[in-house]
Amino acid sequence: MRDDSPNSWEARADAHSFYGFTDLPSIAERGTVVLTHGEGPYVVDVHGRKYLDSNSGLWNMVAGFDHKGMAEAAKAQYDRFPGYHSLFGRMSDQTVMLSEKLIEVSPFKRGKVFYTNSGSEANDTMVKMLWFLGRSEGKPERRKILTRKNGYHGVTAVAASMTGKPYNEVFGLPLDGFIHLTCPHYWREGRKGETEAEFTARMGKELEDVIEREGADTIAAFVAEPVMGAGGVIPPSEGYFKTVALILKKHGIPLVADEVITGFGRTGSDWGCQAYDFIPDAIISSKNLTAGYFPMGAVILGPELADRLQAAVEEVEEFPHGFTASGHPVGCAVALKAIEVIMEGSDGAAPLIDNVRALTPKFEAEMARLAKHPHIGEARGKGLMGALEAVKDKATKTPFDGDLSVSERIANTCTDHGLICRPLGQAVVLCPAFVMIEPQMDEMFQKLEAALNKVFEEVV
Amino acid sequence: MRDDSPNSWEARADAHSFYGFTDLPSIAERGTVVLTHGEGPYVVDVHGRKYLDSNSGLWNMVAGFDHKGMAEAAKAQYDRFPGYHSLFGRMSDQTVMLSEKLIEVSPFKRGKVFYTNSGSEANDTMVKMLWFLGRSEGKPERRKILTRKNGYHGVTAVAASMTGKPYNEVFGLPLDGFIHLTCPHYWREGRKGETEAEFTARMGKELEDVIEREGADTIAAFVAEPVMGAGGVIPPSEGYFKTVALILKKHGIPLVADEVITGFGRTGSDWGCQAYDFIPDAIISSKNLTAGYFPMGAVILGPELADRLQAAVEEVEEFPHGFTASGHPVGCAVALKAIEVIMEGSDGAAPLIDNVRALTPKFEAEMARLAKHPHIGEARGKGLMGALEAVKDKATKTPFDGDLSVSERIANTCTDHGLICRPLGQAVVLCPAFVMIEPQMDEMFQKLEAALNKVFEEVV
Repeated sequence: MRDDSPNSWEARADAHSFYGFTDLPSIAERGTVVLTHGEGPYVVDVHGRKYLDSNSGLWNMVAGFDHKGMAEAAKAQYDRFPGYHSLFGRMSDQTVMLSEKLIEVSPFKRGKVFYTNSGSEANDTMVKMLWFLGRSEGKPERRKILTRKNGYHGVTAVAASMTGKPYNEVFGLPLDGFIHLTCPHYWREGRKGETEAEFTARMGKELEDVIEREGADTIAAFVAEPVMGAGGVIPPSEGYFKTVALILKKHGIPLVADEVITGFGRTGSDWGCQAYDFIPDAIISSKNLTAGYFPMGAVILGPELADRLQAAVEEVEEFPHGFTASGHPVGCAVALKAIEVIMEGSDGAAPLIDNVRALTPKFEAEMARLAKHPHIGEARGKGLMGALEAVKDKATKTPFDGDLSVSERIANTCTDHGLICRPLGQAVVLCPAFVMIEPQMDEMFQKLEAALNKVFEEVV
Repeated sequence: MRDDSPNSWEARADAHSFYGFTDLPSIAERGTVVLTHGEGPYVVDVHGRKYLDSNSGLWNMVAGFDHKGMAEAAKAQYDRFPGYHSLFGRMSDQTVMLSEKLIEVSPFKRGKVFYTNSGSEANDTMVKMLWFLGRSEGKPERRKILTRKNGYHGVTAVAASMTGKPYNEVFGLPLDGFIHLTCPHYWREGRKGETEAEFTARMGKELEDVIEREGADTIAAFVAEPVMGAGGVIPPSEGYFKTVALILKKHGIPLVADEVITGFGRTGSDWGCQAYDFIPDAIISSKNLTAGYFPMGAVILGPELADRLQAAVEEVEEFPHGFTASGHPVGCAVALKAIEVIMEGSDGAAPLIDNVRALTPKFEAEMARLAKHPHIGEARGKGLMGALEAVKDKATKTPFDGDLSVSERIANTCTDHGLICRPLGQAVVLCPAFVMIEPQMDEMFQKLEAALNKVFEEVV
């Protein structure tokens, strides 16, 4: 399959790339797919092969790969002011406008914004803010961060420590003080005979126990994705966030919503926290924030945390933190346009979130249909994010032997037929672009179903 | 000075910004400078005020604020392919081309590249790579990172731990295992009667002692900027890197050059390590890599580290690390153009590095002239980066009382007269854009000299 001639794109990619999050045996066999351009939700490689990208790039290219309005917004700003920082008392007009807009569209009545270049940096910044706040408020021991197993928060050493994935053991992570609670995945973690309500109550009890054991005064925050993304698209059990929020409030522990994936419409609500009816103390944003057209992250502080942090900074006169490209004018112009395109409607087109809502019933129906397959244990999701979990035995929920690499084989088979989807554990994840239309969704599910049938036939 | 009407830009900036690296008393008094556009090395604010930015933004906007070629490269890529990642066996053609180019222009014969969104993320990634390598090579205790006081490596919790600045104490940083050696600043750290050669030997001896004390097997790397940047533009003492490199080699400890500021021409050499005649094991890059036109960082691994890391990854089949915008196609297209503009010459214009070399003698002469001022203790620098250190008493090198905020006053006075320069400790730092021309350099030094005279008159 791969072109192994000395100057092929595959050989050139191999020669100089240190690959991340890439299965090396697949590369050795198949070669890197080198992409040149895109058309709506499709991408095209150097050999002219076209793929429907049901990943939206990496959850983020929700406006597709050739959105005129998004590109024009970036280009206009390149002509106007192509770069600056937001430190030392200076920033671009676009930066001021975006902060204003972000608070306006946030679930907060007021608040403050801090820019980074990624979700990882935003989570890392949030932790530093909380460590700073603890010391300023006379609680220097208030440093521990609670997250959940399968929660994904990024890859800086701190963001990886927050992430509840076993692979971080290869780095000797997590660092001390990062505590991973049980994943609130009722289907997998629920005990025999336990109702979903009982399961949720047990999740709450575990949180209470951990706070009791560690001491509320040692805990800086609880950070959670409204729907877990890279953990395998795992919505919380019924009532989970209401239960958790109440316990945290009682102990005065901030609840931070990592909305890197769920923010700006992925679940059908503006924010994931709105889909689950809770108001966090701060929001971590990235990805859809710029529809993938620029690297950007943001910490959006709600009123109470904003006030406490502002008071803490005023005492020392300066918050000694910031990135060179924090609040980059092109990134801010792009984000302003993305918010317009996704949430408000732009250039005569309806808001893309309308299409998310319109497509969700069909998406859910197709997922439910595939869930009837004897080797699909669960179909789960929210809005336009979903996962199909492969199992060897449906009744006992027994997974396939890991050596079979079932989900990777499904994904590779899909790629061979022009569909990109993402294997995550033994699940296959779908997170289509918000610009997708019905026939494209049909194509996506038809190709996926064919691959499921083929691979399950091979491995069973 | 600041416009305090309710809907002024200053009020809007205050309302929603959580300011980083910003002196809050200055903001309260003067208001945020909100910028709309730039012209060459100048920026213009919402009130139409024009400033010569002797910071080049934040060391990085070396091609100026309206470089046609840079903007066109970004815009063309937005029309072609406006976003993708480089994970899961896929990446854009621009990403492949940039990695190839980076190895070609690096000091390495061969090597591998990993992309991030910032210098902070690149340093954080480097540390994770080294922790991973240690565990893979059966040395899980090989985790300590050696850096120097005043070394600046970024702001993620790990990058801030590498940074040798006292302000990180507000976060309870550094984390354990980050060891800061003495700053190799002969003028400030040299002992009475000690020659520069003796001082350098003492720096070497300290490194030997620390390796002896900690154990070479516990040290993952020594990371250093060829010229310290945000520490106050501090070139190393004569022979420092030759001494240090020899000791590290003897103990098998990798030497990582943080070339975020010095890479791509700032010192007059392509790389800072070339200016000081050493070859590191890896390079951390950012800033000039895109001339500030896109957020991007890179870890560039030399042959030995690339081979060892590749072998380590092959054992576990995947390096579980990567950012959503790693290898973003627009960033890669912009970086390819920046390399052309700075190092090769572009669209008929000479390479900007030629102008760095041409302007350096004048820059050095002007710095030397200002160093004669009775309250300038030292003028130092390399190529087009320099610092003037204010002192109360030149003979004893006694600094001014910190409460006088001398360097902030100088910088604010400059701003009032249309010159942006950066206060760092009691120094004022200059790092002009590579597009600067002689009359602009005259303007820069004239305005700075006037501010120095005014402020020293006030405080003495």
